[in-house]
Amino acid sequence: MSVTTPAGFEASGIAAGLKASGRSDLALVVNRGPLQAAAAVFTSNRAQANPIIWSRQVIGDGVVSAVVLNSGGANCFTGAEGFQTTHATAEAVATALGVSAGDVLVCSTGLIGDQLDRAKLLAGVDAAAAALDARGGPDAAAAIMTTDTVPKVASHRADGWSIGGMAKGAGMLAPGLATMLVVVTTDAVLDSAQLDAALRAATRVSFDRLDSDGCMSTNDQVTLLASGASGVSPEFAEFAVALTAVCADLAEQLQSDAEGASHDIRIEVIGAASEDDAVEVGRSVARNNLFKAAVFGNDPNWGRVLAAIGTTSAEFDPYDVDVSMNGVRVCSAGAPDRPRDEVDLSPRAVHVLIDLKSGESAATILTNDLTHDYVHENSAYAS
Amino acid sequence: MSVTTPAGFEASGIAAGLKASGRSDLALVVNRGPLQAAAAVFTSNRAQANPIIWSRQVIGDGVVSAVVLNSGGANCFTGAEGFQTTHATAEAVATALGVSAGDVLVCSTGLIGDQLDRAKLLAGVDAAAAALDARGGPDAAAAIMTTDTVPKVASHRADGWSIGGMAKGAGMLAPGLATMLVVVTTDAVLDSAQLDAALRAATRVSFDRLDSDGCMSTNDQVTLLASGASGVSPEFAEFAVALTAVCADLAEQLQSDAEGASHDIRIEVIGAASEDDAVEVGRSVARNNLFKAAVFGNDPNWGRVLAAIGTTSAEFDPYDVDVSMNGVRVCSAGAPDRPRDEVDLSPRAVHVLIDLKSGESAATILTNDLTHDYVHENSAYAS
Repeated sequence: MSVTTPAGFEASGIAAGLKASGRSDLALVVNRGPLQAAAAVFTSNRAQANPIIWSRQVIGDGVVSAVVLNSGGANCFTGAEGFQTTHATAEAVATALGVSAGDVLVCSTGLIGDQLDRAKLLAGVDAAAAALDARGGPDAAAAIMTTDTVPKVASHRADGWSIGGMAKGAGMLAPGLATMLVVVTTDAVLDSAQLDAALRAATRVSFDRLDSDGCMSTNDQVTLLASGASGVSPEFAEFAVALTAVCADLAEQLQSDAEGASHDIRIEVIGAASEDDAVEVGRSVARNNLFKAAVFGNDPNWGRVLAAIGTTSAEFDPYDVDVSMNGVRVCSAGAPDRPRDEVDLSPRAVHVLIDLKSGESAATILTNDLTHDYVHENSAYAS
Repeated sequence: MSVTTPAGFEASGIAAGLKASGRSDLALVVNRGPLQAAAAVFTSNRAQANPIIWSRQVIGDGVVSAVVLNSGGANCFTGAEGFQTTHATAEAVATALGVSAGDVLVCSTGLIGDQLDRAKLLAGVDAAAAALDARGGPDAAAAIMTTDTVPKVASHRADGWSIGGMAKGAGMLAPGLATMLVVVTTDAVLDSAQLDAALRAATRVSFDRLDSDGCMSTNDQVTLLASGASGVSPEFAEFAVALTAVCADLAEQLQSDAEGASHDIRIEVIGAASEDDAVEVGRSVARNNLFKAAVFGNDPNWGRVLAAIGTTSAEFDPYDVDVSMNGVRVCSAGAPDRPRDEVDLSPRAVHVLIDLKSGESAATILTNDLTHDYVHENSAYAS
């Protein structure tokens, strides 16, 4: 149930001393081959952390030997010194493993604008390399946690091959990814072009549709590594479906552990003229603070859903939209239908169904409510 | 200091029984002329309340005799019955005043999706007409309050003419206006085309740059009425500057009374390649929940400012941006400058200065922090 589920991978997670709490904060995932094929997707934020700048270069040739990930600092907006720290980290991993630094991805998460303690980080790399283990996946998943309350891992076993993954992220979950670090591994035999195609297809309908708080991180990275150790070459479609399921599983775990959330909200948009329209409408509702605060208060305030839809450019008639909340049709054709007090929002899971009546396309966006605990966690994060 | 400051206007505010609290909830502003010139701007939300649909028709000919405003219900997404209520309200005002219903603007604010009590509303119109007074401006300003804690009025006195205004709005303050109802009056002699040009110029740099919580209302309306009672025709430029000052004053009052806010944040963007770029950057920061929660916690987390800027399409180099908070340069050229603990965010007023170093344009966006009280107020609004 982790990145070491597939054959050919080792992982570790140790405490390098980057976190004041003393908890583990450095993870290493190593691909022992025989293949070292890889693909990755990165934040679409133009403000990109040093590890993103580095990793974009590394992934260019589709060959990755290892991924090193630290919590306790984002290493973003830290200038030349910060970039040198990222570079030195990759070099240290390369030396410890006997690989090329140009095949080492680096991921960081934590506060923006503070320098990482380079000496602690490099000593930590040696400790992480020494701790590598074919059952080390859970340790790695624990070491990348920041405000996460539980580690997130997922896996899929097929006929002779498997996929495993880990993720972190609880705040800044937003479109184009969000402080989300994800490593997914497989022992299937696939080349980097196949991995890239499968990963982009999977993230588009999983992590990219999770929009917990509308904020986009500077450090997001989702990496897919293939060892080929199973010797099995699955059908591409079969692999892509399985990868999408693993990514969707991890995305739902991220939603369930979002900072301070008390509701997991599924916004399902149907009857859209295009999938883009459905995504735009779902995301607009997902980012409406008034709607999110209402859900926190178990208040089925569907007017805020319609007000949010009205800010989009999607094709629809505002006076011919239906909205249901947890199975109760509260709005039909833009007018009140069932009484709002029939809606029970006390369960953690909330389902909002929006029918735009303008076509055959659909999309689902996952988000959370806006709570006192969200405000509390995010007003005290740097201190 | 209100809509009855200029000559030629009468106003009133009474309790029609629309609010469960029994507080005043119906305001009437009447232009006694000799001119009845008017202009108005409306929400850009595609989901438009019934009074917006009505008022857009009324303003077409630039002639307005009266504005009737109710709190206690938005009359939005209430179907044909709701539109008939708006129409009946205008007819009742017309009958009471001996004017045409086609010259009566209607504004509503409150919960979306509930029918207004038409009988109470129409009886209230008669009571409001009976209470009209040349010193009734403050009563009208009180009657349009919803979650506002104080009424908002402003005025400007020039040589022989004046401007007066009132506003309500504390939640849903956002671009393209937001549940913001504003009535501004003047006794200057101006035609409706001049009023329209001056009002659009004024709102563009005042109400349109107030973005308290990123949510856009279905009911926003800003109305400008001219009675010509002073007999003075000011220079257009002089009038436009004075009107902008009154609108800016009201916008700052809205910011100061925003729901649950504990900080008033001025985001000043300079060095932009265009004014549009400056507005886009300022708005992106203003809508970033993580930044807003940090300010609530008096935490100068400037990394969240840069992360928000990075999501825009504005012209800038993410690694050559300067950011100051309350006078302390915390980030220079995308790297840490002064220690963040030098920044004192304990005052209510917070100034964020962002230099994009890409041109000569600038803009300032006003917003608020994200607080426990904001979540509390908006999680319990419908109940």
